[in-house]
Amino acid sequence: MQIPLDRDKPVPLARQIQAHLERLIAGRLLAPGVKLPATRELAHSLGVNRATVALAYEELVAAGWARAHVGQGTFVAGPPEGAGATVAPAAAQPLNWSALLSRSARIVESDGERARAAAPGAVRDGVISFAGGMPDSGLFPTDAFRRALNEVVREEGESLLQYYPVGGYPPLRRYLATYLLRFGLEARAEDILIVNGSQQGFDLIARTLLDPGDAVAIEQPTYPRAMQVFRSFGASLLAVDRDDAGPRVDAFERLLERQAPKLFYCQPCAHNPTGLTIRRDVAMGLLAARHQVPVMEDGFDGSLYYGERPPAPLKALDRHGVVVYIGTFSKVLFPGLRLGWLVAPAPLAERLRAAKQLADLHTSALIQAAVHRFCERRLLDRHVARIAAEYRRRRDTLVASLKRRMPEDVTWTEPEGGFSLLVTLPNGLDAGALLVRAHERGVAYTPGAAFWVDGSGERTLRLSFSSVPGGKIDEGVRRLGEVVRAARRRPSARPIERVAAPLV
Amino acid sequence: MQIPLDRDKPVPLARQIQAHLERLIAGRLLAPGVKLPATRELAHSLGVNRATVALAYEELVAAGWARAHVGQGTFVAGPPEGAGATVAPAAAQPLNWSALLSRSARIVESDGERARAAAPGAVRDGVISFAGGMPDSGLFPTDAFRRALNEVVREEGESLLQYYPVGGYPPLRRYLATYLLRFGLEARAEDILIVNGSQQGFDLIARTLLDPGDAVAIEQPTYPRAMQVFRSFGASLLAVDRDDAGPRVDAFERLLERQAPKLFYCQPCAHNPTGLTIRRDVAMGLLAARHQVPVMEDGFDGSLYYGERPPAPLKALDRHGVVVYIGTFSKVLFPGLRLGWLVAPAPLAERLRAAKQLADLHTSALIQAAVHRFCERRLLDRHVARIAAEYRRRRDTLVASLKRRMPEDVTWTEPEGGFSLLVTLPNGLDAGALLVRAHERGVAYTPGAAFWVDGSGERTLRLSFSSVPGGKIDEGVRRLGEVVRAARRRPSARPIERVAAPLV
Repeated sequence: MQIPLDRDKPVPLARQIQAHLERLIAGRLLAPGVKLPATRELAHSLGVNRATVALAYEELVAAGWARAHVGQGTFVAGPPEGAGATVAPAAAQPLNWSALLSRSARIVESDGERARAAAPGAVRDGVISFAGGMPDSGLFPTDAFRRALNEVVREEGESLLQYYPVGGYPPLRRYLATYLLRFGLEARAEDILIVNGSQQGFDLIARTLLDPGDAVAIEQPTYPRAMQVFRSFGASLLAVDRDDAGPRVDAFERLLERQAPKLFYCQPCAHNPTGLTIRRDVAMGLLAARHQVPVMEDGFDGSLYYGERPPAPLKALDRHGVVVYIGTFSKVLFPGLRLGWLVAPAPLAERLRAAKQLADLHTSALIQAAVHRFCERRLLDRHVARIAAEYRRRRDTLVASLKRRMPEDVTWTEPEGGFSLLVTLPNGLDAGALLVRAHERGVAYTPGAAFWVDGSGERTLRLSFSSVPGGKIDEGVRRLGEVVRAARRRPSARPIERVAAPLV
Repeated sequence: MQIPLDRDKPVPLARQIQAHLERLIAGRLLAPGVKLPATRELAHSLGVNRATVALAYEELVAAGWARAHVGQGTFVAGPPEGAGATVAPAAAQPLNWSALLSRSARIVESDGERARAAAPGAVRDGVISFAGGMPDSGLFPTDAFRRALNEVVREEGESLLQYYPVGGYPPLRRYLATYLLRFGLEARAEDILIVNGSQQGFDLIARTLLDPGDAVAIEQPTYPRAMQVFRSFGASLLAVDRDDAGPRVDAFERLLERQAPKLFYCQPCAHNPTGLTIRRDVAMGLLAARHQVPVMEDGFDGSLYYGERPPAPLKALDRHGVVVYIGTFSKVLFPGLRLGWLVAPAPLAERLRAAKQLADLHTSALIQAAVHRFCERRLLDRHVARIAAEYRRRRDTLVASLKRRMPEDVTWTEPEGGFSLLVTLPNGLDAGALLVRAHERGVAYTPGAAFWVDGSGERTLRLSFSSVPGGKIDEGVRRLGEVVRAARRRPSARPIERVAAPLV
């Protein structure tokens, strides 16, 4: 630790050290519980007598700023009662950062209302939350993954912990090439780029293709974080409404003719928030309709599909090389690893690699190798079979409960895959406004407006079934039904505050 | 695996399956060594008789496309001799991706000459390479880190593998707050943002502050990947020449007055490529000279400093809140983890968090927790003490060898920290052109031109001593001396090709 000492000052050195440490503790620059340097160590680095430091520490302890534990050392306790206000941090004319922000940063800021923490929000005890669009961590194969990690560090640690080529860990890319063939998606290992989850995929594609003023066609409703990325690059969004079979091809064609978008973004399988899947004829129609317009396919992949056989990804039907496919391990394995991949036509793949290299050099090879080891042992297949069965049961429970408990004029999508479905409330109700009452009643969900390009969809809400234990689903729906019924009796009563909900 | 079968075709199903697999193997969509699905499994998913699949496999094996291992299954062997040309992948009118690229992607592309793979380039056996600006993986504390990983997965696996808040793992942020105090840098844990290495730090700062047409002041020479990031956001670069004490304050002041840059980027400690450190008076001068211009401090931190006491970072002297500090574990621990952090004034920190969330949601919490566990046990301190001593020895060896072996008109910087030094050759020599001869003679380095904003510096070359075993340094310098002497005898002979060198 460096402490500026003025030997010409009349203030004793011990007092100077003490005052400096008090300022650090008051400003929480030294947090409670932090161990102060050993007296010998600090004395050495300051070039003072050890007794001087010991005296400073004793004063700190006496005044309540620190605690001494015999044989362990001196630990920060925090500012004593009433001391906070006396020690102000050094103030100065601050820089006006707001005036320096880029166009992108200003867009992100004004988009802030939609930008929620990806992590699960704090939910009061006893609240049944359908708000988290994430896998159930109770089903994680944590221990098997730990063993895989151990093995790869033992066997290849040195190379996995060194700088690594940008494209990714070759065995994982080869595994993915074979894995994707299951869904009819043909990709060579060298055409696959490993990225930090699908979110980084959005970012790399956007920065490679979008300039401010460009338009992006996007199905509606859709995943809010994809919208935010496109907007942050200065693009405007053009909505293509979905029906139960997927984005409407006629609307897409009209839009292509009139507005020349740079890109079309969609989630053909296990769509978030509806859980629906694009029908094959719609998929073919979308691909046929494209006029030199790249398609950005956010592919949940077919693994979390609850029907007979998963539909082919658009990329598998792509004869013209217009589709960029984004895959992720966040849904089928662990979101926290931040591991995903892109499959792009060769000329684009090369540019995406260059963008990835500038963004963060490469994705952790250690994580890639551990996931590869896990997959290679067929542990992913086993895990997916297990969770798909469990999520299917939860979906069935949720849909059955909705049928039983919801008023007749409430409707919902019947998800074929994924983690969630979308509920539409009767006319006159606002799911965002209703959330406060729902929380009070002990149930949470994600208001639907954020999934709409234009912020409409206020009558809709997303229910995620993936992270709600099966035994709680019916009770959650019962509470929701009560909230909806009560609101219909007094639809005009609008609460003042809204409750923040996490968006994944 | 999905194989499109046409039951109305006169071609037998087994033959259709065989032809499809041959096409996949020929196109390397199924790579040599990949195991084909079990016959039972494939038969089930295609809805055909198992014997049909077995027949297709037998034909593949007979023709040399695959190999059968009794009891294990059938494995891809690759296309047999002469078969490649007969099976062409489906071609179609391709999309003209080049015409669709964003301005940023076009800049990155034209900057491609400078953009080299971050991973170590392939170096011929026997070549002594001073080209890799990375830590020596032979010194990695791999096994201790493996144990830390194990512990955190066991204790907190479920939460570390789930989505995580964007700011980072709180105990790691608290550790860093205390760690930075050693260097006089005062930061609260909540002001620290965890990122994927310093490269992502550059990217997030650039996207938050830079618009196309903005200017960035940058010391010269400097780290090429930082330049690339600024350029990719459409910024122009303004060079501030360095002398041995740091960027020249007078030149910086003139530049501020005349050209209003948006940002000033520098590496005050253990500068790459020179290994020099900004003197305290220069640092104060730089900070005093800033006119509402943010300073982006690429802080190697003081750990890899070989002098008496590391100098204070600019951020520690920053009374006006104008400095953004970028820290990294890539030099002191493992580059492959991709782990770094930003310390920014509060108003900027909030925007950097929003940018990070859009870029990839968050950095792997598992990696963060493992590094925290490692640091908390003081293993990082022990490791750094060990490698700093070793790198200091290598620096001493390198400098002594240069003194002994180089012609008198060759000069170099005397590094006080970091991994490298910068050599300047006599007039008339070009380090880039010389590299081919150096390779032939069995020694490699990084030509210096890439470190110059304007591509000058062709007489300079970077020698990294961090990853060259101490026993090979003198021999490497001996070879380099010979190459330089030989070139001076025939300076006009310019080779045609240059050798690609990795840039870290």
